[in-house]
This record gives sequence, structure tokens and C-alpha cells, in this order.
Amino acid sequence: MRMAMVGLGRMGGNMARRLLRGGIQVVGFNRTRAVAEQLAEEDGLIVADNLADAVARLDAPRVVWLMLPAGSATESHLDELIPLLDPGDVVVDGGNANYHDSERRARRLADHDIEFVDAGTSGGIWGLDNGYCLMVGGSERAVRAIEPALKALAPAQDRGWAHVGPAGAGHFTKMIHNGIEYGMMQAFAEGFALLKGKQAYHLDLAQIAELWRHGSVVRSWLLDLTADTLAQDQVLADIAPVVADSGEGRWTAKEAIDQGVAAPVISMALAMRFASQDAEGYGNRVLAMMRNAFGGHAVEKK
Amino acid sequence: MRMAMVGLGRMGGNMARRLLRGGIQVVGFNRTRAVAEQLAEEDGLIVADNLADAVARLDAPRVVWLMLPAGSATESHLDELIPLLDPGDVVVDGGNANYHDSERRARRLADHDIEFVDAGTSGGIWGLDNGYCLMVGGSERAVRAIEPALKALAPAQDRGWAHVGPAGAGHFTKMIHNGIEYGMMQAFAEGFALLKGKQAYHLDLAQIAELWRHGSVVRSWLLDLTADTLAQDQVLADIAPVVADSGEGRWTAKEAIDQGVAAPVISMALAMRFASQDAEGYGNRVLAMMRNAFGGHAVEKK
Amino acid sequence: MRMAMVGLGRMGGNMARRLLRGGIQVVGFNRTRAVAEQLAEEDGLIVADNLADAVARLDAPRVVWLMLPAGSATESHLDELIPLLDPGDVVVDGGNANYHDSERRARRLADHDIEFVDAGTSGGIWGLDNGYCLMVGGSERAVRAIEPALKALAPAQDRGWAHVGPAGAGHFTKMIHNGIEYGMMQAFAEGFALLKGKQAYHLDLAQIAELWRHGSVVRSWLLDLTADTLAQDQVLADIAPVVADSGEGRWTAKEAIDQGVAAPVISMALAMRFASQDAEGYGNRVLAMMRNAFGGHAVEKK
Amino acid sequence: MRMAMVGLGRMGGNMARRLLRGGIQVVGFNRTRAVAEQLAEEDGLIVADNLADAVARLDAPRVVWLMLPAGSATESHLDELIPLLDPGDVVVDGGNANYHDSERRARRLADHDIEFVDAGTSGGIWGLDNGYCLMVGGSERAVRAIEPALKALAPAQDRGWAHVGPAGAGHFTKMIHNGIEYGMMQAFAEGFALLKGKQAYHLDLAQIAELWRHGSVVRSWLLDLTADTLAQDQVLADIAPVVADSGEGRWTAKEAIDQGVAAPVISMALAMRFASQDAEGYGNRVLAMMRNAFGGHAVEKK
Repeated sequence: MRMAMVGLGRMGGNMARRLLRGGIQVVGFNRTRAVAEQLAEEDGLIVADNLADAVARLDAPRVVWLMLPAGSATESHLDELIPLLDPGDVVVDGGNANYHDSERRARRLADHDIEFVDAGTSGGIWGLDNGYCLMVGGSERAVRAIEPALKALAPAQDRGWAHVGPAGAGHFTKMIHNGIEYGMMQAFAEGFALLKGKQAYHLDLAQIAELWRHGSVVRSWLLDLTADTLAQDQVLADIAPVVADSGEGRWTAKEAIDQGVAAPVISMALAMRFASQDAEGYGNRVLAMMRNAFGGHAVEKK
Repeated sequence: MRMAMVGLGRMGGNMARRLLRGGIQVVGFNRTRAVAEQLAEEDGLIVADNLADAVARLDAPRVVWLMLPAGSATESHLDELIPLLDPGDVVVDGGNANYHDSERRARRLADHDIEFVDAGTSGGIWGLDNGYCLMVGGSERAVRAIEPALKALAPAQDRGWAHVGPAGAGHFTKMIHNGIEYGMMQAFAEGFALLKGKQAYHLDLAQIAELWRHGSVVRSWLLDLTADTLAQDQVLADIAPVVADSGEGRWTAKEAIDQGVAAPVISMALAMRFASQDAEGYGNRVLAMMRNAFGGHAVEKK
Repeated sequence: MRMAMVGLGRMGGNMARRLLRGGIQVVGFNRTRAVAEQLAEEDGLIVADNLADAVARLDAPRVVWLMLPAGSATESHLDELIPLLDPGDVVVDGGNANYHDSERRARRLADHDIEFVDAGTSGGIWGLDNGYCLMVGGSERAVRAIEPALKALAPAQDRGWAHVGPAGAGHFTKMIHNGIEYGMMQAFAEGFALLKGKQAYHLDLAQIAELWRHGSVVRSWLLDLTADTLAQDQVLADIAPVVADSGEGRWTAKEAIDQGVAAPVISMALAMRFASQDAEGYGNRVLAMMRNAFGGHAVEKK
Repeated sequence: MRMAMVGLGRMGGNMARRLLRGGIQVVGFNRTRAVAEQLAEEDGLIVADNLADAVARLDAPRVVWLMLPAGSATESHLDELIPLLDPGDVVVDGGNANYHDSERRARRLADHDIEFVDAGTSGGIWGLDNGYCLMVGGSERAVRAIEPALKALAPAQDRGWAHVGPAGAGHFTKMIHNGIEYGMMQAFAEGFALLKGKQAYHLDLAQIAELWRHGSVVRSWLLDLTADTLAQDQVLADIAPVVADSGEGRWTAKEAIDQGVAAPVISMALAMRFASQDAEGYGNRVLAMMRNAFGGHAVEKK
């Protein structure tokens, strides 16, 4: 199989590498050409000069896999791709897109008889070695066309990827996955904060994280990673207590509201990230002011 | 009626003043004597040199009202008071005590045939002028003995105080009151933060707080105070975004757990205060580290 | 002043009545004509046969106040109104609309030089007697044109209404108001559940609600209403434990996510309503199944 | 090594079995003797008639491991054991006890120079085959005395057990472990509810759970179990949406309050279990009543 990979950043670059090592011919295009050339040298990537060149190097039905940062880049790439593609070609969006956008993009491409596949991708920087978990939405025909790539990317040929539903369902499933991830991470963070807060016991958090990996109910990949990093440093003196969020958690929390489904843990995991980002703390200042107003309680001065 | 008031701080001092202005004779004792003397001069307080002197100045059945900061002071005052009192005398605890402690203290005093009344008191620094809301627990007999004082303290003779149940029930009711207060305050704080966050509208928060006081569903005393203070300063530049908590919120959240009753709003209002107090942010640093470990996401350096 | 009121339901009917009693001439149109005729008979409403007739009965600059149930009705009324109106006329939307829609509608009308005012309205069924709290967005010119109506509707001529910002800002402010309302209501609900849960004290919830109205920190209009209804019935045996939500709470929770502002209390108040509506309880069934799977814990059978 | 196991229920029975298979001689006592006799027949347990008999069959320093249901049974067993034991003997509590109780019990036994070890145990019904995760608190000396048993119980000789701190620290660490477990479980439950709620996609939840096991960020033992059970039945029609809680979650949430640490995810996971258990729904009925009182909103009748 031959296919194009557009966007060779942290995710796309490693995915191209894993595809190449799995015997897939990958035509790669990246804004910064040097990245592509390194992949060419090391793993045999076929470097394309631009989108048109990438498409020209494929055979019908062409498969163009987009691996772009979330945001408007996908839209502009589709604008450029549509005139270059023919009916029956397949565009895969492997990035983190909102599933409503993916549904809309699938409809747009369908107007040109081009297939759209949304392939929600999990695995982070470990995917190159461990394989990626791929949650795939699209038509039967389109998914069959990219199956060799899915098999090469997944941890095992027949496991770690699945066709979960129509276009949109892939990114939807990935969104929910990330929502769960937010909840799990916050659960661990709270637990470790409480272990640390019990100062009388002088607990060794690295020891406990490692211990829990063996036989406990909370054993998990997130715990594996946490144990590894706490083993190196459990003081975390250099790390600011600020937790970014990347969109998927927000989408999941809003989906819960749209569905009218209670999702307190996912919602609170998200809210705590917002609180960690809030250097201004206006709400808390209002609270401190209110306490002063009704009870004469002292207010901490800035 | 003549009674003793022990503890003439922010709450106790104003309550003594309101009692005196309501025609009650108040024997006052305070660790710092100057406070008592000022009350004597301005409102006719009878100054006592110590607890024994205060008790000596009362007639049976004696009423000793404790208005002490939360903590162990109440316990040591009871140690000292018990030998000074006779069967039928009444000790009132008007401070913020845990209702479990109040139940225990009532049993302890009952062993000496001394009555115990827990009078949960709300109203803050505004109680002197507006009257206090008093939630009273104890025996019929004991409550009847202090009724003139309750009538003088409450906003109106027959409203703003009530005998809600046996000893303990007063502080229990006050605890729940404060739990609700935590939730209401946090609701307002979130709302004002969201109004401020909508920068495109340049909303005048003082105008809106004042507006809501008239005819809206959220009109309330807390809003009245908020409107007054926002009218003076809605930037709050001097106020640190740190919100203290004083015990009652914690007790309510723990009561909910003991009862097995879901109290997410009260619990989250409390948790947000904890988060505001958490300068170290260990849990958030664990989270930032985890994100880096699985996704290679950048970590903000301290 | 003469104006049209379109939609004479629970809210619109009472508002027309209050306007009429305040000396405003109101041309009223309602799908069900009988409602309009009753208002004509009792308070002098001028009944219109349809939208065109309502508009025809006004003088320039015409003021048409829409008081329609949330949903698509507003959109279709605008479709019909635009050709009937002239530059300088004013359309007021007093219903519960999403502020994004109001911003869009203002732009649409602006294309025809028609003014749009969004008047977020609080007060519920009590507004007829107490007056309504009106949060008004729009241009200076438009708000000045409807000022006599705002003064008649508000609790007092100069209080209870305010021009808070451009078109959209009125419904935005109303949305946040309702979000706060969700949080306050849930705080009270949790508090009363905890009072009831303390069975040993046999607390009289009506007594406590009434007590808190006088001098306490939680005194508020919502408490006033609660006290009145609990006085009639505190068992609530007939009422199902199912709490509807009407959109504004959802919008506020989503706004918090869009702003990246932590709003845990508003979010949890909403989530608890969702939980109350969830007869199926799939998430809880998954949880019960999981507990059985790892711990052999018994599962309650349906 | 020879030791006694007291309590041969779901946990204790399997642990005795794993110890026996690991070459440890186990004297077993169980209220219901038949359970002990089956273990004797199948795996060579030495059956004791009562506690005194169990102790008599051990050599100094004796090791008595209690595996009793949470509650008062531990206390009464200690009452009976203390006179039977000698200085230097070791009592292990492997059940789910509150760490405050364990600290107190350690002090009580220390008065008799008896060692106390609290061995928080995770692994559920899968521990027999997979090994148990053991979080151990106590003195160096005491832990060394039971080390062969810990090695036999843990998944691997040198992994899956650890001496985490002084007496109390074992149960503390187990408590936090379970708190994290509550959060993780609720995160998954919310995620699966949202997958199911997206009806347009007709997602196969068993397929997705299985898929996530391979390469995703949320892969975990809880997900493994969930995937296995959903594969058999994802409708869960027989399971009531009621989730029990067993104490550890409550203790963790209260610990967070005592520490003043925000633990919203663990707290909300617990609150949702409470909500699921609340057939009466008094708080929700108060809410429905309030909505009716201020807005005339219809109330669902029971």
C-alpha cells in the first residue's frame, strides 16, 4: 500500500515511521521540509514538495492521511485537496477534531464523492514503539481501503484498531476516551496529593506508585508512566502547578450537557484544570470580599 | 433578666450590646478587660473580673452565655464553670461548635444537672443593627429560661429565633445553614467571574449586582452586600484570590458523607476554597508531569 | 407609549397586564385569541388579529416585544416581522434566548436598519405584582425608545431594569443569573435533605426555613418561597424526585467551558438535575457491573 | 513459615489458599467451620476450633492474620487475642479498616508488646490467581516477621507488596488507593454512558472497550474487566442502577476535608453513588417544588 501523510510533527512523524517500518510506502509532506528529509533518510519516506505533489505520487484510490494540529489547518488543507482528488479517493483525519466538524467535513467531501475517514488516535509519544489505538469512523469501503495502514499502526494486526461507526464516530469515540482520561488523571492526582498531605507517614510516593502497578485495582498505563516519572523525581519542584487542556476535555463536558447526561467526574477534572490556569482568580477574590462584607473576616492582601 | 456573656469579641461584644439595648442586664467577662470596660461605659455592661466573679453576680437559675472562638476554649471554660454552677443553671454556647461536641457537652453538664443550650447564631457583623438569627437546641425548660435574651437578640421578638430540637440540634442547624451559605457564595462567585470573563461586553458588575436586587430570582442578602461592595470597588485589585474556610463547611460536607447524602454543590464550594488555599499545588504538578510523560506536552516551569 | 406584545402566555400575558396597568397602550397578539380577549376585557389590551395587524396598529418608531417560548418560534416571527417593519423600528426579545442567537438576530435586523433589544427577564409568576428584573442589551437609541415600558415592568421606575451592554448582553446577563439560581437552589436542596436526614432530631423544616428568613446569611427570595411552600407541606409525598432543566443552566455551564472558567457549583447543580432525570441509569449499571467484576460485590437486580 | 488466618470468607479464604500453595503452613479459623474444612481438604489448611486453638498451634513469634469484614469484629477479636498472645507476637489486620482505628489498635497492642501490622490488600476475587497488592504498615521487625507470607501473597516475590510506613500507613495507603479507584470507575461509567447516549452512531460498547485495551491512554485493569463483561452483555437490563459504597470512598473524601485538599473527582464519584442509592430523593423533590413556586413550572407527580 502507498499513501500520503500530511503533517509530520510529533504525532504524524512517528506514525509515518511506524507505517514505513510496517511495509507501507509513505509519501510525506510537511511545512518544514527538513523533518520530512530526516524521515526519508532514516526510514525511506518519499518526500513531497507540496500537497499537489503528494497527491500526484499516489495511485487511485488515493489515501491522504492528515495529521495536523487541532484548529483551522484541516479546513484549509481540505480546500486545497478537493480539486486535487478524484471520486473514490479517501481523506483520513487522524488529528483531534471535534466530531461535529468531522461530520460536516464528511458531508462536504461526499458532495465530491470523496470518502472521509476520521481516525481518532491515542497513544501519544509511545505509539511509535507500542502502536496506536485507532478509533475509526467512515464507510465500509473507505475503511477497507486504509486497512493495511490501520494494521501497521495498531499494536497488533487485529487489535488496537476498530471501525466503530459512520464518519464522526471515530472522533466522537476518541473524544470520550480523552474525557475518561481527564477523570482518571485527576483521580490519580488527588490520590497522590493526599498521600503527600499525610506528612506524619513520610510516604514514598514512587514506592507506592510502583507497588500499585502489581495486583492492585488501579493498575493502568497512566500509573505505569506515573511510577516511572515519580521514580526519577517525586518532589516536582520545577513544575508549575498549571495544567493545560487541549480541547477534547471541553468537548466531552459539553457533549454531556448536550446529551443531558450527568458527567460530574469528567466535568470537575476539567474545572480543576481551569482553576489551575486562573492566575487572576476573580471569583475567589469576590468570595474573599463577600466573607469580609458579611462576617468581617480578614482578607488576604495581594 | 440578668445573664453573663463570656467572650466579648466581634460577635460576643455586639451581642452584649444588643442585649443591653434590649433591656437585659449583662454581666460581661473578657480576657482583655478594656473591651468590657468600653461596653460598660457605652452601654452599661456589668464588668466581671473572672468567670467566678461573673457567676457570683447572677441569680439562680443562672444563665452563662459563652461566645468564644471555635476550638478548645469552650472545653476549658466548662471545666472552670461546672464547679461554680448549681443544678438548674443554664450554659449557652452561642459560638460555632461541632454539634457532636455540643451533644457531648450537654451530656457532661447533665451529669451535674446543669442545662446546656446550643444557640447557633447567624448574622455576622450586621447582627447588632439587624438582629441575629438564632437556632436553638436544648430542653424546653432551658430555652424558656433564656427566652428574653433570644427575643432581644433576634430581629423581631417573635421571629428570627426558634427552638429547633434537643441539645445539638441548634449547632446542627447552624452548620447546615453555613453549608448552604458556602454553596450560595460560590454560585455568586462563579457568576460574577463569568460576567467578568465576557470581555467583549464590558459589563459593569456593580450595576448588574444592584439590578438583580430588584425583582430577580437571585435576590438575597448576600447579593445586597455584594452589590454594596462592588459599587465601591469591582476591580478588587488588592484582594488575594485566597478564600479561608472556618470549619462549618467542612463539617457539613462530612455530615453529608456520614448520612450518605449527595451534596455536590456544598462539597465543591468547599473544595474550591481548598484549591484557592493551595499554593503548593502538588496534585496539579503531578498532572502536568503525567501529561508530559504520555503526550510529550510541554510543562510550565516554576 | 404604545407597543405590541407578541405571545401572551404565562410570562407575556402578565407582562402585558403590568404594562397596561402602568399606562402603556399594548397591542396584543396571541396564537390562542381567547387569551388576548380576556386581557382586553380585564385590562384594556388592544387585540390584534395577526402580526401584520399588530404592526399596523403601531406608530413609528414601532416597538414589537416578543415573549415567546424558547425555541424556533422567535426565528419564524422575525421572518414574518422583517418585511412588516421600517428602519428605526425596534424588536425586543424578552424570552429566554441563547445570547449567541441574540447577537446573530441583532446583526440580521441591523441589515434592515431595525433595532434589536434583548431584554432578559426574571421574576417568574410573581412579576405581575412585584415587577420584573430586566437585563437589557441593545443600542442607546433602542433602549431609550422602550424605556417607558421598562419602567412600567420593573419593580420601581428607576430600579430593577438596566441597560447592561450591546445586543446579546441582556440575554447573556440573564443566562448567568439563571446559572447562579441553579447553584443557589441546589445548595438549599442539599441543605434541606441533610436536615431531613438527621432523623434523631425530628427537625421541622418549615420552622427552620421560616427562621432563616430573619437575620440569617442565607435569607433570600428563594428561601421566602421555600418557607411558604414547606409551611403548607414538608413531606412532598406527591412530588416526583425529578427536576427539569430549561436550557439556561446548560448554556451557563457551556459558557464556563468556552471561557475556560471553573464553575463547579453551577455545573454540579446542572449535573444533579440530569441525574434526577435519568431513569435508565446506564452509567450506574456499568458501575454496579464493574464492582461485581473485580470484587464479586453483589449487584442489585432490577 | 507457619501462621494463622482468621476469617476465611471471599478474601481470607482465597488468601489462605494462595499462602498454602506458596508453601506457607496456614492454621485457619472461620466461624463457619465447613469453609475451613474444604480448604483443609483441597489445600492442606490446618483447621483450628477457635482462636485459642489457632494460637496454640503456632510457634513464637506467632503471626495471626485477621481477614474480617469491616466493622466491629476486629475489635472483639483483639479483645480475645490479647490474653492469648505473648510479647513479640504479630497481629496483622488485612481487612479494610479505617487507618485511625489501625493507629489506635497498634497503640493498644504495643501496651502488651504485641506488634500490629496493617496490610491493606487489593486484588479482589482475582487475587488468588494474580496475586494481591499489599500495602503494609508497621515496625521493621514485624514486617520482617511476615515477609514470607507477603511474598507468597503478592504477584511476584519482590513486587506487589511494600512496607510503606508505620502502623496505620498501610490502611491509609489502601484507603487512598480505593479513593482513586472510585474516581477511575466513575470516569469510565460516565464515558460509557456518553457513548451509549450518542444513539445516532449505534456504537458497540463492547467493541470500544476491547479496542481501548490496546494502545490507548486509558488502558487499565478496570478496563480489561469492563471489556470482558460488556462482551457478554452490554445491555445490562437486569442490573439496577444502584451503586453501593463500602466505606473506603467515604474515608478518603473525609480525609481530603481533614487535610484541606481539594479532591473533587473522588468526592463526586462518591456523591454519585449516594445519589444512585437515594430512592427517596427528598432534595430533588424540594427542587421541583421550588421551581413550581417561583416559576409555575409543572411538577412531575409520583
